[in-house]
Amino acid sequence: MQGTFISFEGIDGSGKSTQARLLAEALRAEGHDVVLTREPGGSPGAEEIRRLVLEGAVDRWSPETEILLFTAARRDHLEKTIRPALDRGAIVITDRFADSTRIYQGMTRGDLRGMVDDLHARMIGTEPDLTLLIDIDPAVGLSRAVARAGSELRFEDMGQDMQVRMRSAFLDLAGVHPDRFAVIDGGRAPQDVAADVRSTLRARRGV
Amino acid sequence: MQGTFISFEGIDGSGKSTQARLLAEALRAEGHDVVLTREPGGSPGAEEIRRLVLEGAVDRWSPETEILLFTAARRDHLEKTIRPALDRGAIVITDRFADSTRIYQGMTRGDLRGMVDDLHARMIGTEPDLTLLIDIDPAVGLSRAVARAGSELRFEDMGQDMQVRMRSAFLDLAGVHPDRFAVIDGGRAPQDVAADVRSTLRARRGV
Repeated sequence: MQGTFISFEGIDGSGKSTQARLLAEALRAEGHDVVLTREPGGSPGAEEIRRLVLEGAVDRWSPETEILLFTAARRDHLEKTIRPALDRGAIVITDRFADSTRIYQGMTRGDLRGMVDDLHARMIGTEPDLTLLIDIDPAVGLSRAVARAGSELRFEDMGQDMQVRMRSAFLDLAGVHPDRFAVIDGGRAPQDVAADVRSTLRARRGV
Repeated sequence: MQGTFISFEGIDGSGKSTQARLLAEALRAEGHDVVLTREPGGSPGAEEIRRLVLEGAVDRWSPETEILLFTAARRDHLEKTIRPALDRGAIVITDRFADSTRIYQGMTRGDLRGMVDDLHARMIGTEPDLTLLIDIDPAVGLSRAVARAGSELRFEDMGQDMQVRMRSAFLDLAGVHPDRFAVIDGGRAPQDVAADVRSTLRARRGV
């Protein structure tokens, strides 16, 4: 793969989706070939699987079935969207990738984490070249998430305690993979966060 | 699990669906609590995943994504239909189970077989107490399958050479698991095959 694969991660309301978009815009303005995508979803097939997972009652699927469906969606996303773009040399920016599954499912039930990692190793394999963790005080993140509460409260349907634990889990994961992760302070104005993101990409990946 | 878990396997046109139904009818007539089900599908969630897999172009999903979707469907089928029935002591009869995935996907690409087995071991675990392989000459099976060709030619869209290889792969699998498999000659009249199935279940599982 010739391109650069970047993921944004963070708790709800961290501003990661905004930052993914701002980075894509900045890179395009510089003349780069950029593909901005997201999970769950990111390819027509993966979007259909996403709908299947998100629709209906919250307990419609067991956590194990949900992990299988998310892995199927990620495999399709990788094959149809991410790999072809990287192969032609593009910069791929995804709003969430496997780390979100690791954190969210591992949070649901600790024993699922090994399952997620095994399925990832066997069926996905690929990791981003750089993961930008947009880190924020959960109280700020939660108020932002509630403010823009739309139709998809699937994961946001969790209180502040959960957000605190997730932030901590994301930071732990970043600590385990320091070469891949960069932790960005998301508590500043969006343009300041964006400038930090842009300079971090340059420093870490030479792009 | 207190009940008895029985699967029917075989190439297209082998008569396994008819035999699954006839066995269910015979056992119900004897007063047994019987759940007759099938794959892919077998629970509301699994049926939705089945539709997602079977609809659209044949190459819409890669073999790897398809294996993940089938495993998700099987996990749901197991959790929502099979296990609850076995837990209350019922006899569960399924028209296809994991062996079909092993044969069909392994036939598509040899290197997928290990993937199927690993996913099964990790995410499904359960095997039938008895697998009845309805064995038939592929020429007979193919003509039967073509005769009843309906809307689901997804797997039947294969020629006789493929059926010959599948029959051989099913027989090989039965040879590897002689305690679980019983090979039934499907080339006879349906009522004769059904009588053989019924006596085999009695001899092998005491039911």
